[in-house]
Amino acid sequence: MSRPLPNDSPSDSVQPTKEENVHRRSWLKPSLDWLLIFVPVAIAMRFIPGLYNPTWLFVVSCIAIIPLAGWMGKATEHLAERLGQGIGGLLNATFGNAAELIIALFALSKGLEGVVKASITGSIIGNLLLVLGLSFVAGGGKFKEQIFNRTAASITATALTLAAIALLIPSVFHQVAAQMSVAEGGWTPAKEQNLSLAIAVVLIITYGFTLLFSLVTHKKLFLGEAIQGAAQKVGHELETWEDGDEKHENVWSRGKSITVLLVATSFVALISEFLVGAIEQARESLGLTEVFVGVIVVAIVGNAAEHSSAILMAMRNKMDLSLGIALGSSLQIALFVAPVLLFASYLFGRPMNLEFTIPEVVAVIASVLIAQQISSDGESNWVEGVQLLSVYAILGILFYFLPDTHTVTSAPQIIDSVAPAVSHP
Amino acid sequence: MSRPLPNDSPSDSVQPTKEENVHRRSWLKPSLDWLLIFVPVAIAMRFIPGLYNPTWLFVVSCIAIIPLAGWMGKATEHLAERLGQGIGGLLNATFGNAAELIIALFALSKGLEGVVKASITGSIIGNLLLVLGLSFVAGGGKFKEQIFNRTAASITATALTLAAIALLIPSVFHQVAAQMSVAEGGWTPAKEQNLSLAIAVVLIITYGFTLLFSLVTHKKLFLGEAIQGAAQKVGHELETWEDGDEKHENVWSRGKSITVLLVATSFVALISEFLVGAIEQARESLGLTEVFVGVIVVAIVGNAAEHSSAILMAMRNKMDLSLGIALGSSLQIALFVAPVLLFASYLFGRPMNLEFTIPEVVAVIASVLIAQQISSDGESNWVEGVQLLSVYAILGILFYFLPDTHTVTSAPQIIDSVAPAVSHP
Amino acid sequence: MSRPLPNDSPSDSVQPTKEENVHRRSWLKPSLDWLLIFVPVAIAMRFIPGLYNPTWLFVVSCIAIIPLAGWMGKATEHLAERLGQGIGGLLNATFGNAAELIIALFALSKGLEGVVKASITGSIIGNLLLVLGLSFVAGGGKFKEQIFNRTAASITATALTLAAIALLIPSVFHQVAAQMSVAEGGWTPAKEQNLSLAIAVVLIITYGFTLLFSLVTHKKLFLGEAIQGAAQKVGHELETWEDGDEKHENVWSRGKSITVLLVATSFVALISEFLVGAIEQARESLGLTEVFVGVIVVAIVGNAAEHSSAILMAMRNKMDLSLGIALGSSLQIALFVAPVLLFASYLFGRPMNLEFTIPEVVAVIASVLIAQQISSDGESNWVEGVQLLSVYAILGILFYFLPDTHTVTSAPQIIDSVAPAVSHP
Repeated sequence: MSRPLPNDSPSDSVQPTKEENVHRRSWLKPSLDWLLIFVPVAIAMRFIPGLYNPTWLFVVSCIAIIPLAGWMGKATEHLAERLGQGIGGLLNATFGNAAELIIALFALSKGLEGVVKASITGSIIGNLLLVLGLSFVAGGGKFKEQIFNRTAASITATALTLAAIALLIPSVFHQVAAQMSVAEGGWTPAKEQNLSLAIAVVLIITYGFTLLFSLVTHKKLFLGEAIQGAAQKVGHELETWEDGDEKHENVWSRGKSITVLLVATSFVALISEFLVGAIEQARESLGLTEVFVGVIVVAIVGNAAEHSSAILMAMRNKMDLSLGIALGSSLQIALFVAPVLLFASYLFGRPMNLEFTIPEVVAVIASVLIAQQISSDGESNWVEGVQLLSVYAILGILFYFLPDTHTVTSAPQIIDSVAPAVSHP
Repeated sequence: MSRPLPNDSPSDSVQPTKEENVHRRSWLKPSLDWLLIFVPVAIAMRFIPGLYNPTWLFVVSCIAIIPLAGWMGKATEHLAERLGQGIGGLLNATFGNAAELIIALFALSKGLEGVVKASITGSIIGNLLLVLGLSFVAGGGKFKEQIFNRTAASITATALTLAAIALLIPSVFHQVAAQMSVAEGGWTPAKEQNLSLAIAVVLIITYGFTLLFSLVTHKKLFLGEAIQGAAQKVGHELETWEDGDEKHENVWSRGKSITVLLVATSFVALISEFLVGAIEQARESLGLTEVFVGVIVVAIVGNAAEHSSAILMAMRNKMDLSLGIALGSSLQIALFVAPVLLFASYLFGRPMNLEFTIPEVVAVIASVLIAQQISSDGESNWVEGVQLLSVYAILGILFYFLPDTHTVTSAPQIIDSVAPAVSHP
Repeated sequence: MSRPLPNDSPSDSVQPTKEENVHRRSWLKPSLDWLLIFVPVAIAMRFIPGLYNPTWLFVVSCIAIIPLAGWMGKATEHLAERLGQGIGGLLNATFGNAAELIIALFALSKGLEGVVKASITGSIIGNLLLVLGLSFVAGGGKFKEQIFNRTAASITATALTLAAIALLIPSVFHQVAAQMSVAEGGWTPAKEQNLSLAIAVVLIITYGFTLLFSLVTHKKLFLGEAIQGAAQKVGHELETWEDGDEKHENVWSRGKSITVLLVATSFVALISEFLVGAIEQARESLGLTEVFVGVIVVAIVGNAAEHSSAILMAMRNKMDLSLGIALGSSLQIALFVAPVLLFASYLFGRPMNLEFTIPEVVAVIASVLIAQQISSDGESNWVEGVQLLSVYAILGILFYFLPDTHTVTSAPQIIDSVAPAVSHP
């Protein structure tokens, strides 16, 4: 970088010259596209009998999904641009985490409820701690202090606190209700199910109001960034970096957008099916637990595009966009993807509830709490990034050491099974 | 509303003209007084044998208390005005939640400790989530952004965090101490009692200092609003809306204030006795649990006057008053009413402790946390109101599904009863 | 005090005249030095057989350590001054809590792991609640409102949140993993140990980065105060109060600093050995539990120098220094002393883990939460001090009533022992 360190606020940043732009574009060019080579590799491994190896198929599928998710995001954005701000924002907000949603739906259809919940947890904490942490470190390495819109960040952080409370409640219910016999109104799977369903309805309604707020009544506050930011992927940003008059030439036609979206989505679905099909054997041969795979591996794969995008924005001192992507993506997972998965689980005939394990609940609450603290003052620096990464490392250590509880017996059930034993001594 | 949207700060709001005032007064006129018709209805139902039906008596009593509590508050305020700011503020701060206190005392005398604790929980979360949430939505519907004194709100929010910690400690004590045999210093009801008593003393001393702060040393910060706001009921506010010189004519004489206060209090006491007497049969016939009735029903009834008052203030962009009522009322319940009830329980010969059930503790902590987040930035909008209401809905769902734990066995006691079983295998 | 109340910001405080200085110095003169008389008393009691009484030896040792810790801190600072800001800051940050570290090492070598963990807990909550609370009350008694650097305070508070999460994780791990049999990957002491070790490594790396931030990249933000402030003891501050040109005469030579440091450290080590040796018998005869002695008594003794120093700074309206001492000392305990003790425990052949009891974890989380709330707005007043002291009192009550759980069975182990009983009914 030959320019002096841009310590000024993001709003009055100097327009780069044409030459700088070219240099910058090639330098910033997302290098994820070459990973598309893993798509045919995954297909070959799956269908050519001699090449089939679940562990390698799992690894290759994980890598192959990363660039595909990036293309889904890019196509969604171009389509959103063509459809105008209102509908476009809604589209971004709805399909921004489509790759995660597809993977989770396949996992759900195979009865891997534990992986689904773990990947919800992992997406929330991954965005809040890993993505935001790396963004602050990358941005803070270039700029001594970075500022962002405190109000927009606070509203998203509060919505995340709400989501953390919502994910805590089913576990509290189980803990307490399990102490009663069923005759006294104690815990039953059906009650847990109904409680979860009611909470999911509240969450998705709240998400609807949050969209109304950010896309309609207070859209200036978000500048089309924060909530929709969840879907602001790398490619589009690079193109809008150029002069205003050039901009529209680069927006894809409606037809191209829809075609790319459909093709990318089909491939994501296909590879997700490979990934989920291989997950059980792969994690066993790698010696990883289901919850670790869900919380750490699947979550990183599904959110890789957000990662690179948020970090690039931070390095350009566009902290509002960077926070919008990280916080917005977490929010979308918690208030939209989680309820949708619960509703979808009824279609598969295997109703899922919202009861997460205690470590998952603790991880979400801890992440939300520290992200809220860090984002509430409207400024960031590299050490705050280190703090977020440090919490991520500590939670990663916990999930690495934890035995699989989803598959055997979830935390409160032990008390459940104790309760009757106690009542007739 | 024919006036343009008043987006200016509350301090420099334009004085309304006489005509506007009249229009406004009739429009804002609290319509709660017509509910007084339910007072004789309740009395009739209670004493005329053919009309007696506990469920209907419970419902009618609930409604009848609402306007009576409003009149108690109004009389308290008029008396406070006559007694001057110091004593008056103290009076407001002490009797602001007198209706809740009376209902709780009757419940305590009947041994309904579970209802008492549930209604303490319900008053705290109801004020923080329901009242504040509705205020933000009502105010935010008219004003794009509303601002308030961050310092005053923060001090009250911190006092509430302190209260939440205080209500958590007895449960932690029970959980841990119950693992020891009594010989080793383990849990006994007497220890829980003494621990609760010591905490109650700390709470009421802290409340005393908070009053000293808000009424004496830093009264300008609160402008006679925040803490005392707990008692700022509808009627008085409407009258002080008028020109300064007219104001004093409308303040009741000391005699009238005391008379109204005594009459309203007597009726509240009478109807509370009906309400509490009918509670057990009513909730059974309605299929509601004790904890749901306490947390949701009794809490809403006891705080209805605060509800309408806080919402009106928010619609007039007087956010400091609105927050003062909601936060201040919660604070008063936690730091004053709860300790007083504990002390009073000794007079009834049925000492109460401060051990709340785990769902109650979780509900209070969650409410305080999210209210603190929302009030710490000194600005509000409608979506923050939606977020608060959403948390209230989620907690309401929890309490609806929860079986009654107060009456059967409280959360930690299960471990208590397990412990000995374990020690001799 | 004849001067008018200095309500102005700390930065532009008027230089006191020479006379005032003299008056002030004698008035502020730390009166802790006379406590040195208890050093020979303790030695006599320990070695003269007729005088030996463990309870009194414990009490006298506690008192004797207070001035010695003060001298250690003073010598560290003078040495730091001679070595220059970088190395000096590092020295302060490393040896600021050396007295606590020495006491804890002796306790560790005697297998008093419970006391060690309790004193870590006590140091964290003591600094956050007692020291900060007394500072706010003392400062707020003189100044209506006091301001401080919100950014520096927030970064330290966030680091403390991180520490609180880190101390929670081993307990969560135990709770959940204990439900599995060892064959299924369930809880074993070795796993708890490895988990704790990994977390300790993360903590000490984070501490390293925090030092890099406060001493190198953002040192202006801290003005050499906040983090290093942990070691800013009374004596040095008094001397730098004088005119700049006199200042350097008062800085001790390198030789004097090292000599004083060595002598004071030797005596602290000696007296710590007495204190720890007498602790078991003393607490039994005083009727105190191990955890109460650790959390309240040892923590107050080890931090007495910080206490007086932070309060003096607050009374001079130097809130940045006051907060730097209180928050910085807590941070140092959590991110540096705790990991170092864990590493040191391997040398003693009795590996310690980071699993704290549930009341300890609750106390740390509650303290961090309320300290973060209070410090996040950049202003303080006396009632915030009362609130902090009130939480300290409530936690003190809890630890007073709690039976000793460290020695018998820690919280999650009960579930541990229940689990097998359940699996074969």
